[in-house]
Parts: sequence; structure tokens; C-alpha cells
Amino acid sequence: MTLPARHAVASREECAALDRQDPLAGLRELYELPAGLVYLDGNSLGPLPRATAGRVARTVREEWGRGLIRSWNDAGWIELPQRVGAGIAQLIGAQPDEVVVADSTSVNLFKVLGAALRMRPDRPTIVSERGNFPTDLYIAQGLIEQLGGRHELRLVERDEIAGALDERTAVLMLTQVDYRTGSRLDMGVLTARAHGVGALTIWDLAHSAGAFEVELGEAHADLAVGCGYKYLNGGPGAPAFLYVARRHQAQFRQPLAGWMGHAAPFAFETGYRPAEGIGRFLCGSPPVLSMVALETGVQTLLAAQPLGGMAALRRKSIALTELFIDLVEHRCAGLGLQLASPRDARLRGSQVSWRLDDGEQGFAAIQALIARGVVGDFRAPDILRFGCAPSYLRYTDVWDAVEQLRDVLETRAWDAPAFRQRGMVT
Amino acid sequence: MTLPARHAVASREECAALDRQDPLAGLRELYELPAGLVYLDGNSLGPLPRATAGRVARTVREEWGRGLIRSWNDAGWIELPQRVGAGIAQLIGAQPDEVVVADSTSVNLFKVLGAALRMRPDRPTIVSERGNFPTDLYIAQGLIEQLGGRHELRLVERDEIAGALDERTAVLMLTQVDYRTGSRLDMGVLTARAHGVGALTIWDLAHSAGAFEVELGEAHADLAVGCGYKYLNGGPGAPAFLYVARRHQAQFRQPLAGWMGHAAPFAFETGYRPAEGIGRFLCGSPPVLSMVALETGVQTLLAAQPLGGMAALRRKSIALTELFIDLVEHRCAGLGLQLASPRDARLRGSQVSWRLDDGEQGFAAIQALIARGVVGDFRAPDILRFGCAPSYLRYTDVWDAVEQLRDVLETRAWDAPAFRQRGMVT
Repeated sequence: MTLPARHAVASREECAALDRQDPLAGLRELYELPAGLVYLDGNSLGPLPRATAGRVARTVREEWGRGLIRSWNDAGWIELPQRVGAGIAQLIGAQPDEVVVADSTSVNLFKVLGAALRMRPDRPTIVSERGNFPTDLYIAQGLIEQLGGRHELRLVERDEIAGALDERTAVLMLTQVDYRTGSRLDMGVLTARAHGVGALTIWDLAHSAGAFEVELGEAHADLAVGCGYKYLNGGPGAPAFLYVARRHQAQFRQPLAGWMGHAAPFAFETGYRPAEGIGRFLCGSPPVLSMVALETGVQTLLAAQPLGGMAALRRKSIALTELFIDLVEHRCAGLGLQLASPRDARLRGSQVSWRLDDGEQGFAAIQALIARGVVGDFRAPDILRFGCAPSYLRYTDVWDAVEQLRDVLETRAWDAPAFRQRGMVT
Repeated sequence: MTLPARHAVASREECAALDRQDPLAGLRELYELPAGLVYLDGNSLGPLPRATAGRVARTVREEWGRGLIRSWNDAGWIELPQRVGAGIAQLIGAQPDEVVVADSTSVNLFKVLGAALRMRPDRPTIVSERGNFPTDLYIAQGLIEQLGGRHELRLVERDEIAGALDERTAVLMLTQVDYRTGSRLDMGVLTARAHGVGALTIWDLAHSAGAFEVELGEAHADLAVGCGYKYLNGGPGAPAFLYVARRHQAQFRQPLAGWMGHAAPFAFETGYRPAEGIGRFLCGSPPVLSMVALETGVQTLLAAQPLGGMAALRRKSIALTELFIDLVEHRCAGLGLQLASPRDARLRGSQVSWRLDDGEQGFAAIQALIARGVVGDFRAPDILRFGCAPSYLRYTDVWDAVEQLRDVLETRAWDAPAFRQRGMVT
């Protein structure tokens, strides 16, 4: 696919032509998107795949309602964590037996961070980024406090990460794509730097999985966690996933030693014996209704495999974000927006963020956009954030979003916000 | 309500008369139960409430599909953990702000056990029962290992519990109702004994919540966890709940310090500050689809409040289990069954368990019963287990179950089992 040349698009009709030529355009039909809405918040809550409602209804009415207890076996509920994990593995460059779905991203981070510190007992430092997503930092703080304060969470700026690694570093813990700016770290380079000093890596793939090709295997990544409800379209609060490289699985012991991670959960033994393989990272019973919704979201993304899969989706994602940047810079010039995302597409995730000169008004501007049917979100103090999920977003959607943004900023057509949004938007 | 006198029932017609007189009989209409099935496994996976499919479908199609990200606020998703917790509180003798729904029972046990050990830093012992449900023991073992082995999990027999408590005891951790026999511990007496030596209590209410009146407040219980998918009918792998007495909430810090337990999750601060109150026991994002199913299950049980609530349900539960015992002892006499549950109803939960002389055949007998539409379950090595959920079970169901059980045992109408059941049955 040829990317549109920069500065080449000057009309909605040109965008419509790009949509007509888009080999992935048909994927949009796999999602339920309200008519007239331009949804640029799939990096916070992905939209509903068309197959999900039916799948969940069958699980409720038939598997639970009629099959009752037998459905743990007959409907394969008990295999959901591994089965959905194997599907996600295809999207993130992992082997099928290296990924499992369970719990939340925060709980999974606690598991892999706890396991990693045990693997490096003589090293006291966890290195992370000051701007990492807060729950990752909180989980590290809670774990350190629980372990008696023998460890230190060392927070540095983005450009200081590599330099902060030394032989005291147990773990380098990073979120690959910054939730505010969409800036993307080089997993291969930073993993190699961590390994160079003998440290392990934990990658949070919240804004990576389903957004672009993740290369866990190629980068020799050790551990990762990620989110089911953003680009995987698993539904609100969908279960999360975790990845443990095969070479580490036998040595890792995680602190949340629940029965689903036991070698023989239904033998009801008194002593804990971890399962072989990735299954030892499970803890309690999987929330089946949320799990089947996530499975449908993953299957919907996997429908793009014959069309080139994540590589093709990534090409379209870059084309969409490049178009967004070009259009804003040409059509919203002088209206106070400054690009907060990297200009180099290789350094971006699948979102575009802008700072508004008048930061105080950024929240109001987003609310005004939402009222016009363009859903982005705001991150304090001054970030306007637009997710560009390539599986359902059209080039004309980008055009329409920018036109509305221009009109909102030109007319300053907003009221002072009466409240701050409390939405679950990360 | 007058309980049927023991040994008084000699015919199905008498059971039908009891059903006609049952003031709670109408509650059965609130559940979807396959025609012809006698479901005695609601202590493993509760059946589908009639309102659940519609509620889940609305959440999927309207709240997620149309409301998208805004539904975190507009549909109240963000309040689900506290709102569903407040509903459960009504069923377990707690205040609305003492219960929250989150994660799994295992993960919640890790939180409250971790918090409790921190509250008793100079005490090394966790006392529990050797026959406690295994995941509870595994979680304690995992936590102890993580904390460096400074603690000891002391396992004793049921009648040795009170005697095992001393000034070295940090926590007494018990499951109130034994998952195999249905034997029920006296929460008030054991909590007082624990407090007498300065220890805290953790009660696992997996087989208590929704089965009978739990008196957490009256017993001055400190901490509790419980399961959403058994008597609360929240669906397969439903989220679990935890209880922290109000007097303890400000002092407890739990190790799983995720963003949903932060005082201001959407302020995206770098440092963790726990929320006021029960909210600090949250960790990650709630799995909304599974949460709304659980809320519907809890609301369905609360529909019995005008009919006397859990007290009335408990009376019926006792009547059902007494009937079950009487009928088996009269109609299955000489067929090798021995009561494994306490004979005194005050010492039982809401299930009846039997040992089969020929223990090896117990699994096959249960499979034969299931093939005849009577769903109980088997617990190795020799327990046949029958849950008697009072909100939907009829006296005639008990009659029919016992008649089928008698016929199975008389005719020994089973094949040697080709496999061991792997179902998620606790």
C-alpha cells in the first residue's frame, strides 16, 4: 500500500478515494459503530465487535442457562485463559504457549514483577519512566512496600532510561507507548540494553497490542502485560493478558498462588504445586462472560490475517495518523495546537496527541467535539488525544474530525466545563 | 413457617403440598431452570436468573455499543464495585460501605491476608484448617513465600481450631462452610476466641453468602472474602467480594496497590495514595459484563427481602436439607450411604453430603444421576454432594432426587467412569 504523500490531501473527496482504495476497508463492517459518530477513543475503550453480542448471549442463555456446571468442560470455559492467550500471542509476536489471559493489567503486573524480583534477588532497583502509566508505578510501590522496602523504584525521564541501567537493576519496567503522547519506545534496543547489564524487562503493552506489530520474540523480551479493552476490543474492563518467555516459565514463581495456577487444581491437594508452563500465572476462576467477549474481540482482529494482519493494520495506522497531522497543521494552523506526538511515524503508536496553547480550555474543546459526534479525550494538563484504530477508522473520519476540530477552535464554541470527566480513559 | 416433622414425609404428594404452602415458592420463577432438571449444584455454579440475559444484552448493545466510553459515567460502570458490594452487604450482615466487589476470591484473600499480616507485624502464625478449600491454603503459602518465610501456616483439624490460637497467632483464616461436608463453623464463637488472643479473623464465605444469614457485624468479624458464582448466581467465574469492618478500613494497606484503589485514580498522580474506605481494596478495572451479571444475581436474591429475606430462605434451606436426610435414610436404607454432613441443622450450610461405602463408585453414581437429570457433584475420595439452594429448589425436587438416587444405587445402573470430571466444582 502506498502512503499518501505528506501535504497531498486537500479535500474530503480525496479522503473518500483513499477509503475506496483501502484493502482493509471491509473490516469496519465487523464493528458496531453508531451512525454519524467518529470514534477516536478506541485506545481507551474499543468499540463493540458485531459478533460479540451474539456470542455473549449464547454463553449466557445456552452455556450457562442450559449447560450449567457442565459447560466448564463442554463449552470449554476452563480453557479460555490459554485459548484467548494463544490468539493474542499471534498479534504480539509471541508463541501460543507464552501468553495467558487473566485478572487485570495491574494484578498481572504484580505477578510478573514479583516473579522477576525473585529471579534477581541481589539486585535492588526497578527502573521505570516517571511518565509511566500511574497504576504501573503504584503496583511497583505496593510490592516494594510489601517486601519490606529493600527495593527502590528509580524513575527517570524518557531519554535517560538506557543510562539508568546498571548492575543494580533487577528489572526495567516500561510501557511501550506513552498514554498521553503516543510516543513509542524501541523494545529491541531497550531490551538489549537491559540484558546487557543482566536485568530483566517487563513491557506494558496497553497501547501496543492490537495497535501495531509487537515483536516480543524478536526483541527477546522477558515479560509483558497488556490490556484487553483498548485495541483488542474486549469490552469494558475486559480481562488482561500476560506474557512470559518460554525460557523463563519453569523458573518463575509468582506470589498470587491461586488454585487455577496449580498443577492439578481439581485434585484439591493441600500444598501448592505450580502448573507447568504459562498456566502457573493464573490465580482464580476466569470471569467467563468477560472472557468470551474478549475472545470475540481478538478473533475480530485476527480476521485481518488474510489481508496482511498486524503489518497491514500498522501501515494503515501510519497513513491515518500522518493524514491527521497533515490536516491539522494545514487546516488548523494558527489555532493554538501543537503536536505532542512524535512527528516520525516510527516513533508513534496508533494515536495523535496535541497540546492546546490555552491548556485550560482543552477539556472544554474535547467536550465540544464530543457533542458534535467526534469522540477523543483529554489528559490533564493540556493534552487532546485521538486514537486512530486502523481496523475501523476511515480516512474520511479523520477529515471530518479535523474539520470539526477546526470549527470548534475557530468559533471557540464551548462553554466552560461544569465538571471534570471521570471516565475510565487511559 | 413450620418445618415438616422429621420422618413425616412418605410420598411425592406430601412434598407437592409443601411446595404449595411454601411462601417462597414464587422465587423459582426468577430463575431459568431447564425443564425436567433437578439442579443440586448451585453451590458450585448458581443457575441463570431470568433477568440476567436481558441485563447483559443491554450492557453490551446499548451501554458499550452505543454509549461507548461515556458509559463509565453515564451507565454507572465506575460505581459497580461499590454498588454491587452494598447489595451483597445486605445478605451478609455488613454495612453498605464495608463490602466491595473485585477480582477473584483468591486475589481478594491475598489482599486481606497481606493487609492483616501487616496489622500484626510481630506475630508469625496464620492458623487455618487442614481441610480448608485448597486455594485459600495456596494463597497463604504463596504470600508466606513472598514475605521471605517469616510466617508459618499452621493447619489443624476442625475441632482443634480454638485450641491452636495463641499470642503468636496473627490471623485465624477459615472457610465458614466446609466445601465437602457442608459443616458450618460458629463465626461468633471463633471470632471471639481469636480476638481473645489478639488475632484477626478472615472468613471465606464461599458457601455462606446467599445460602443463609451471615452475621459479620454481630460476630465482630474483621475481614472476609466470598464468591459470586455460587449462591449469589453471578455467573461462571463471577467477580468475588471482600469485606473489611469499618473500624479497620483506615489502617489497612493492601499489597495490590492498583489505580482503582487510589484516592484519585483519574488525577494520574505518580505516587500511590489509598482511597478512603473500602475503595482502597480495589486494584484494576472491573470486568463490567461479569459485574452486571453478578449485580442481577444479587438483586434477584434481594427480591426475597419482602418475604423475610435470608432468614426466610434459611428456614426453607433447613427444611429442604432435613427432608433430604430423612428421605435418604428411609428410602435408601441399606444402599451404602452414610451422612457426611452434620445431623444438627444449626451446624450445616445449605448442602447435604453423603459418603458411599464403595467410595470408588461414588463418581460413577453421580454421573448416572446426572444422566437422569439430577445434577449433584462428587468430591474425591468418596463424597456425593447435593446443594439445596432455597431460592429455587422445590420439595418435590428433593423427592425426585432421592428417588433417582435410590434407583441408581439399587440397580447399580452405572458404568465404571472412563474419566474424572474436570469441572469447576467447589
